[in-house]
Amino acid sequence: MFESAEIGHSIDKDTYEAEVPALREALLEAQYELKQQARFPVIVLINGIEGAGKGETVKLLSEWMDPRLIEVRTFDQQTDEELARPPAWRYWRALPPKGRMGVFFGNWYSQMLQGRVHGEFKDAVLDQAIAGAERLEQMLCDEGALIIKFWFHLSKKQMKARLKALKEDPLHSWRISPLDWQQSQTYDRFVRFGERVLRRTSRDYAPWHVVEGIDPHYRSLAVGRILLESLQAALANSPRKRQGNVAPLGHSIDQKSLLGALDMTLRLDKRDYEEQLVTEQARLAGLLRDKRMRRHALVAVFEGNDAAGKGGAIRRVAAALDPRQYRIVPIAAPTEEERAQPYLWRFWRHIPARGKFTIFDRSWYGRVLVERVEGFCSPADWMRAYGEINDFEEQLSNAGVVVVKFWLAIDQQTQLERFEEREQIPFKRYKITEEDWRNREKWDVYSEAVGDMVDRTSTEIAPWTLVEANDKRWARVKVLRTINQALEAAFARHKK
Amino acid sequence: MFESAEIGHSIDKDTYEAEVPALREALLEAQYELKQQARFPVIVLINGIEGAGKGETVKLLSEWMDPRLIEVRTFDQQTDEELARPPAWRYWRALPPKGRMGVFFGNWYSQMLQGRVHGEFKDAVLDQAIAGAERLEQMLCDEGALIIKFWFHLSKKQMKARLKALKEDPLHSWRISPLDWQQSQTYDRFVRFGERVLRRTSRDYAPWHVVEGIDPHYRSLAVGRILLESLQAALANSPRKRQGNVAPLGHSIDQKSLLGALDMTLRLDKRDYEEQLVTEQARLAGLLRDKRMRRHALVAVFEGNDAAGKGGAIRRVAAALDPRQYRIVPIAAPTEEERAQPYLWRFWRHIPARGKFTIFDRSWYGRVLVERVEGFCSPADWMRAYGEINDFEEQLSNAGVVVVKFWLAIDQQTQLERFEEREQIPFKRYKITEEDWRNREKWDVYSEAVGDMVDRTSTEIAPWTLVEANDKRWARVKVLRTINQALEAAFARHKK
Repeated sequence: MFESAEIGHSIDKDTYEAEVPALREALLEAQYELKQQARFPVIVLINGIEGAGKGETVKLLSEWMDPRLIEVRTFDQQTDEELARPPAWRYWRALPPKGRMGVFFGNWYSQMLQGRVHGEFKDAVLDQAIAGAERLEQMLCDEGALIIKFWFHLSKKQMKARLKALKEDPLHSWRISPLDWQQSQTYDRFVRFGERVLRRTSRDYAPWHVVEGIDPHYRSLAVGRILLESLQAALANSPRKRQGNVAPLGHSIDQKSLLGALDMTLRLDKRDYEEQLVTEQARLAGLLRDKRMRRHALVAVFEGNDAAGKGGAIRRVAAALDPRQYRIVPIAAPTEEERAQPYLWRFWRHIPARGKFTIFDRSWYGRVLVERVEGFCSPADWMRAYGEINDFEEQLSNAGVVVVKFWLAIDQQTQLERFEEREQIPFKRYKITEEDWRNREKWDVYSEAVGDMVDRTSTEIAPWTLVEANDKRWARVKVLRTINQALEAAFARHKK
Repeated sequence: MFESAEIGHSIDKDTYEAEVPALREALLEAQYELKQQARFPVIVLINGIEGAGKGETVKLLSEWMDPRLIEVRTFDQQTDEELARPPAWRYWRALPPKGRMGVFFGNWYSQMLQGRVHGEFKDAVLDQAIAGAERLEQMLCDEGALIIKFWFHLSKKQMKARLKALKEDPLHSWRISPLDWQQSQTYDRFVRFGERVLRRTSRDYAPWHVVEGIDPHYRSLAVGRILLESLQAALANSPRKRQGNVAPLGHSIDQKSLLGALDMTLRLDKRDYEEQLVTEQARLAGLLRDKRMRRHALVAVFEGNDAAGKGGAIRRVAAALDPRQYRIVPIAAPTEEERAQPYLWRFWRHIPARGKFTIFDRSWYGRVLVERVEGFCSPADWMRAYGEINDFEEQLSNAGVVVVKFWLAIDQQTQLERFEEREQIPFKRYKITEEDWRNREKWDVYSEAVGDMVDRTSTEIAPWTLVEANDKRWARVKVLRTINQALEAAFARHKK
């Protein structure tokens, strides 16, 4: 895989100097076009052998291009805010918005390679990390991002010579690599595992470019040209979203449905309700104060029919707690900054730190519900969302986040009664809009979307709980009890 | 000051229960109106004696109102990302946007009182903190925010009884106060310094409300009503911005001006330039790698006439450095999320952590330049901006941030030549727009605005450097040299 990057590529000074001016102009043009179009972000990943010119090349690109439109990020030490969240959080928060370019040093590939070379884990864990990187990049590309991956290579002999030269240069000695490259074994292992990583993650949508790093002229021109060509192709290619064939979801072939199978007569009388509510609230308060909560975070997602009682249920959960312990994130239309990012970005930014609890009032499931039904996104977008959401929730779960998801279901008659009641009572008027009536007419398509959603995203790590919500009391107690059970199960699992 | 909060206020259960439903409805109505108008944020500060019901009251308000529109924040331990920046950064990042309510526990008053009660500092430092809080609140109110400050009070006897009761209640024992309230002296000192703080910071635009905390019914109703009345008054009052009389700035009465006094013939020939540029770049690279940089951060602000060469100067600064060491923040029109916050919010979010360097390509000075000249804000807004900016920069400086500010000045003839050149050269076309030609017609009003800006914001801690930029070489070297001198001066000061 690295063979052709060890053959001593070089370009003479005259050729280099003759070519650079036109390349620079073209890169600048492409950058401004990128900004103008503001259709997609560019993510440049910088990896490879120590001493192969990674830093120098990025510095040169910043000189050639307009550095005001480039964000260079290193991910060395995690801050405590990052350590308290899933590992990918730090990358999400650093993503460049549409129209800008982010250069990521010390990215996900560096982390997995360091870990493997250091012997912190074996191939199985490396392969997990590789698969995670693939899913992330696939998602980013599906969302329109242009990803350009550079691997700077040197032969072992070349590297040793470079390290010696760098050591004597005070301008370079201040940066410390997390790997000890002086050891011959480090190089061998890095190349071996690097080969495995590149083989698995070089995909049509985000291929690796291996660049021989020994000759600065060759290296710089090669990188500059690849960058330019990738940019130009993406800018010409409109729209950037990959629109492959979309396999349709099967429709139900009988009249049975998940929601139809719910027993909507379930109810609690007032006395039972008050007793059980107080019990479950006290239980939740206790669980969140439990020492074991320090290793976890809690995310509760509330979805449901309009007027199903999401707000009331959320208030009963909140009422159990000190307001300093939770945050409620109401999800409405995305803001301008959110629209300039991949779909899941606006949820990642609210992911709780360890020990904390975030309630999402509506959520990332909007993609496969309202956006699907109303046609706010393409079928390809919402179809791939099922998988992306499962990946997202798996990352949360792996980081100790307990994910609890509720669909509050009512029947059409109950909804009608509640709508009418809302129109009557002065301080509930704000709760009912024209849109609610319009959505009501789409009852069946929404029900189908809910069925597909549950089928495709109710997973072992983050199952859906369907809540029979014709009776608000029943619904509220069921919600609280489900959260409590999920927390207890997580605490018990951790003990093992 | 606390006399009438020690007289045993109480409300009987029947009165309380009769009043609460109407109060809740009215609070909900006000909340939705707040959201609908989205004209201003509400900031509720919670302070006072331990055990006086602060937490309980906030919990109750979250139950009464819609908790989805309330963000409760505690500021106990600072994260390492917060510790690396000026102290106010953590409050800025937690500010609620327009239309929402933020409840701040453990806010700036708690911090200053704890410090004083613990004896970490004396009255002089307390008074500095008080003055800082006043400036912050004044600015927030001028920006439209509604600030409601509650002081929950108890007599010493009442407190002792409450602490005893709380100690026995497992639901309360888990929260640890940073002060040891069991000590009789703690109460005395807290009340004494609290009195000083309240006296100084109770202002017409953000008065304190002292609430006796012993009786839950009285306390809850009192707080609920104050909140409601404040909300209703602010919602009815349109617009919320205080528009007092604005004293006009004096006009120049002769033909002399700061910009006119610059020697625009200053220049460097190519050889001197190349030599000096390399020297200054190496000096900057060395300074940023200096160990003493760990205690500082660097902010460079670039303003100047259109086509004065800001971009080119920034690139020469950047070229000195590894791209991982700096960030360039181009300031254009604010985003939707930025418009929902006070003016300075969008700059606070980019303030570098210790050891880092941020370059602002245009800056907070837009307020007193383009916004003033184009009438994008009212005269009252830009007039108060001078003081707000000085406060802002003082906070940066106090936290070790070195602030360097450049105005790149060219004369009208040079600008004309550069505009025409830009229109000729293909890859410079993006740099020239209709707007640039329009701005050029306002040369004199812009010059006046620049004069006022420098007069009012060139301070000992953050002086302006006017850069004669007819000759780009001269300008670039002067910029680099000025940054280097500022860093060296800061390092030398710290040594003392």
